[in-house]
Amino acid sequence: MSYRAPVEEMAFTLRHVAGLDAVLAQSGAEIASEDAVAILAEAGRLAGEVIAPLNRIGDRHGTPFSDGTVTTAPGWREAYRAFVEGGWNGVLASPDHGGMGLPHLIAAACTEMWNGANLAFGLCPLLTAGGIEALAAHGSDALKSRYLDKLVSGEWTATMNLTEPQAGSDLSGLRSRAEPHGDGSYRITGAKIYITYGEHDLADNIVHLVLARLKDAPSGTRGISLFLVPKVLPDGTRNDLRCSGLEHKLGIHGSPTCSMAFGDGGGATGWLIGEENRGLACMFTMMNSARLNVGLQGVGVAEAAYQKALDYARERRQGRAPGSPEPVSAIVAHADVQRMLLTMKAYTAAARGICYLTAQGLDAAHGPEGKAAHDRASLLTPVAKAFSTDIANEVTSLGVQVHGGMGFVEETGAAQLMRDARILGIYEGTNGIQAIDLVTRKLPLNGGATVGAQIAAMRRVAEGLLKDGAPAFGHAAARLREGIGNLDRATSFLLKALASNRPQDALPGAAPYLRLFGLVQGAACLAMAGLASSAALKAGETDPAHAARIALARFFAENLLPAAGGLEQAILTGGGFAEDPAFALAG
Amino acid sequence: MSYRAPVEEMAFTLRHVAGLDAVLAQSGAEIASEDAVAILAEAGRLAGEVIAPLNRIGDRHGTPFSDGTVTTAPGWREAYRAFVEGGWNGVLASPDHGGMGLPHLIAAACTEMWNGANLAFGLCPLLTAGGIEALAAHGSDALKSRYLDKLVSGEWTATMNLTEPQAGSDLSGLRSRAEPHGDGSYRITGAKIYITYGEHDLADNIVHLVLARLKDAPSGTRGISLFLVPKVLPDGTRNDLRCSGLEHKLGIHGSPTCSMAFGDGGGATGWLIGEENRGLACMFTMMNSARLNVGLQGVGVAEAAYQKALDYARERRQGRAPGSPEPVSAIVAHADVQRMLLTMKAYTAAARGICYLTAQGLDAAHGPEGKAAHDRASLLTPVAKAFSTDIANEVTSLGVQVHGGMGFVEETGAAQLMRDARILGIYEGTNGIQAIDLVTRKLPLNGGATVGAQIAAMRRVAEGLLKDGAPAFGHAAARLREGIGNLDRATSFLLKALASNRPQDALPGAAPYLRLFGLVQGAACLAMAGLASSAALKAGETDPAHAARIALARFFAENLLPAAGGLEQAILTGGGFAEDPAFALAG
Repeated sequence: MSYRAPVEEMAFTLRHVAGLDAVLAQSGAEIASEDAVAILAEAGRLAGEVIAPLNRIGDRHGTPFSDGTVTTAPGWREAYRAFVEGGWNGVLASPDHGGMGLPHLIAAACTEMWNGANLAFGLCPLLTAGGIEALAAHGSDALKSRYLDKLVSGEWTATMNLTEPQAGSDLSGLRSRAEPHGDGSYRITGAKIYITYGEHDLADNIVHLVLARLKDAPSGTRGISLFLVPKVLPDGTRNDLRCSGLEHKLGIHGSPTCSMAFGDGGGATGWLIGEENRGLACMFTMMNSARLNVGLQGVGVAEAAYQKALDYARERRQGRAPGSPEPVSAIVAHADVQRMLLTMKAYTAAARGICYLTAQGLDAAHGPEGKAAHDRASLLTPVAKAFSTDIANEVTSLGVQVHGGMGFVEETGAAQLMRDARILGIYEGTNGIQAIDLVTRKLPLNGGATVGAQIAAMRRVAEGLLKDGAPAFGHAAARLREGIGNLDRATSFLLKALASNRPQDALPGAAPYLRLFGLVQGAACLAMAGLASSAALKAGETDPAHAARIALARFFAENLLPAAGGLEQAILTGGGFAEDPAFALAG
Repeated sequence: MSYRAPVEEMAFTLRHVAGLDAVLAQSGAEIASEDAVAILAEAGRLAGEVIAPLNRIGDRHGTPFSDGTVTTAPGWREAYRAFVEGGWNGVLASPDHGGMGLPHLIAAACTEMWNGANLAFGLCPLLTAGGIEALAAHGSDALKSRYLDKLVSGEWTATMNLTEPQAGSDLSGLRSRAEPHGDGSYRITGAKIYITYGEHDLADNIVHLVLARLKDAPSGTRGISLFLVPKVLPDGTRNDLRCSGLEHKLGIHGSPTCSMAFGDGGGATGWLIGEENRGLACMFTMMNSARLNVGLQGVGVAEAAYQKALDYARERRQGRAPGSPEPVSAIVAHADVQRMLLTMKAYTAAARGICYLTAQGLDAAHGPEGKAAHDRASLLTPVAKAFSTDIANEVTSLGVQVHGGMGFVEETGAAQLMRDARILGIYEGTNGIQAIDLVTRKLPLNGGATVGAQIAAMRRVAEGLLKDGAPAFGHAAARLREGIGNLDRATSFLLKALASNRPQDALPGAAPYLRLFGLVQGAACLAMAGLASSAALKAGETDPAHAARIALARFFAENLLPAAGGLEQAILTGGGFAEDPAFALAG
């Protein structure tokens, strides 16, 4: 069976982990949480019934390229049209431009669904969302009035043109050039690679956001400007840009990854977004939400892998489980398979909680909490991006494992999810870069007060577990308290290193620290959901989902969170490898 | 650059971790350790220069199938011929049948090399080795004289026909049938799936070992017999068997994975190997070495991924490393990339040590140590198989990550290694089954004395670290002692559960226990190599590889081994999830 959006779990997480009701009360959207759930249910239908069935088709069919033209797989145009006509491209965007104007929290849940159904499909609106955000924040009124409505509706799509062969994670080496044309426009020349949906047949126009250097611009990243370069110019003619080739990729075959050539004929026409030489700042504006969206892609594909593995484990019969009356059991009855499935489910739910919590910060930044909420979102963003996509790799690989030999056969579809997921930890800033961002830029926010407040919030959850006292939580309270201790000590260690005269001593521990943060924050999210369910049970509710949430919080705390201790140890005493000449890594 | 067999590291591990000199002294092979190293160097040349260059070709070309015929990729026939002519198929086999009669230790190193060069290629002799072992141990003299020499030379290849669609991990549901024909032969009918090299063009004959049921055989696994069913009969005619299709797989595209149809024309002719209804016992004979060989596949592909990532990290320049005088550094200068590379290198070396130690047990079983060594090999085998292939998945995925966006592009070849490696944790008994085997069959060996002796041996290594006292070991001694404590307590807990009236309570902890065992044993192996290097340095040797081995033992102990504590906790207090109805996993 295909992906079914877990609307009930998503809604429960939105309400009891990420405070949906408060976000709605404070937002201008004027909808109640029941309306929000109805919207999610509607999105879930589109995701499950229309978009998910195209996932395997896209993988097999790819996006054939000929004469500069890219054709998406059969059914994709129709599905994209349904997506646009439903207004789903504009969930987050302002009603001034035709959007629904809903909070980030709702948009996050929708993003998770599109991508759970079909990562390659979900990428297209994800890129457009980034374009909308950059344009809305930094574009001139003229540019906005020309492009924003069509991007919000999804009639046109957007791309991000950053990477060049010599400039990947490090954009300082960018070589694409821009020259003023005298009429307010610029002529753009250069070659870009890894441009997602750089060319396709889903929309009549593609709005490329391109980083390039003006003549005499300062070298490095302070000399980069951002330009809007449309495929079709306002007068209806084709701009001087083309797709010069497609990558042959490990996964997400349904989405074209293009090499783009700008200005072969003398220069593509573009318009400046924001100020000259301030292009990176414009990109940073949308970085929080773009990185969060990639994290949500991880949650979505992990959920899809879990559902597929669970379906298979219920069907496939091999061996007799101890104590079973049947001679041959469904493999879901074996403890080892249960461990794999629950690991998948628990990591997915934890990552969902972290992502939604991050979205909540983006929403609350517009309310009375203001900057503190924005800073919290900034702190959580690298964790949301990297933890969610790391676990997406692990969960999709476990999904293959649950399928046994069938998992290695492409027809089953489990392997596709693993292939597709593999890019998530790489693009939009590799997960190593997320870890460096977390440690070197986010921990020091407000002198460490932002991370301190977040750890204090986790402590309140641990205290809640102690107070609740339901035996079904097992050792969860103790484990969470221990994990918070691990995180707290590691945080202090890194903050001290950053304040020392050798701040680079914090770098060797960055990756394990991000994992540690994700584990403890994820455990706290599951505990919050579990506590809400425990309260509901005490209030007489009988939905079996409540007991399942408590059990999942317990499973995570008892089986996955204990890795925290080893991570703390690696951070505090394992950094000696960096710069150790004994390894002679540099050859 | 392509795979280069790390002959120096392999030889060092063979001598200082796995006691090569003692094995050679006791073996009938009458070669010195210098001869052994010369043999490895020669094998390394064939692996690196002939077999490795075919890896990408096999991936792209696959094994086209038409009219029942399978064609391997261009160059594969010639490479296989060179492999056979060099005598490499017979490294382990008895000189009575034309083999080299070398110890398992040497064969293990060679197996690692063929598979490091090219997993899809290495699989073919790996299967043949299993056939040789089963036939040599259980075949009649007539069968042996007809088939053994040709299999040892590699002129003919062998397959294992176990799996059927309804019978994967659980062979009790096997349906293929055999009927005595009156002339000593049997008529075999049935369908098999996932038959590696079931049909190909590398050899003139293919010797299928087929599990099937005799009429009136007891149900379940006690009614399964093993038959030798050749593709070409002794009279030169084709047997009644054919390849009915190939799987479309995630990886190892260069090796055909066949569906086989036996007896469409009335019955394929086969001969019984061993006794009727004792087929599974015959398979068990070769299980230790077959599983060890799959573990070595994991080591080989992990090594290949490490080499590729290191080469890339030395070339690719992005960002300025702290303290670097250059404006842009090779990415190998960044701490995060160093952590990834060292994690790859350390896991690979640890798994190599475990695999070689296992091979040593197989060799020593033929010497004065006898059964104790055999039992030690039995204990270590599931760890060698599962830990090595789990880390192969992790290491090959890290290899993709080091490549950044390039890692997701198939041309780079990093993604292929990840795709290829993914089967290793599944075939020859899934890694979950290895964990169950370790806990329920191997821990109780000799009332726990076998595992106890192994833990005692690890303790001696930890004491050696304390005694050595070289500062370059950092916290390695303390960490190893702690890890051994984790393993010791987890072992006692599981042995107690097994002895209780609910032995199934040991199952939920099986997978984390195997990981724990692998981590601690792997750390001990690296420490043994480090101690030998430390002694060499103290004796005045100046090879920089010595300092690198000490640093690697330290890195593993300080950064990877600390996961042991969390694993112990999960084993001791995390098993409550099994049979918890709250999860409603069974639907």
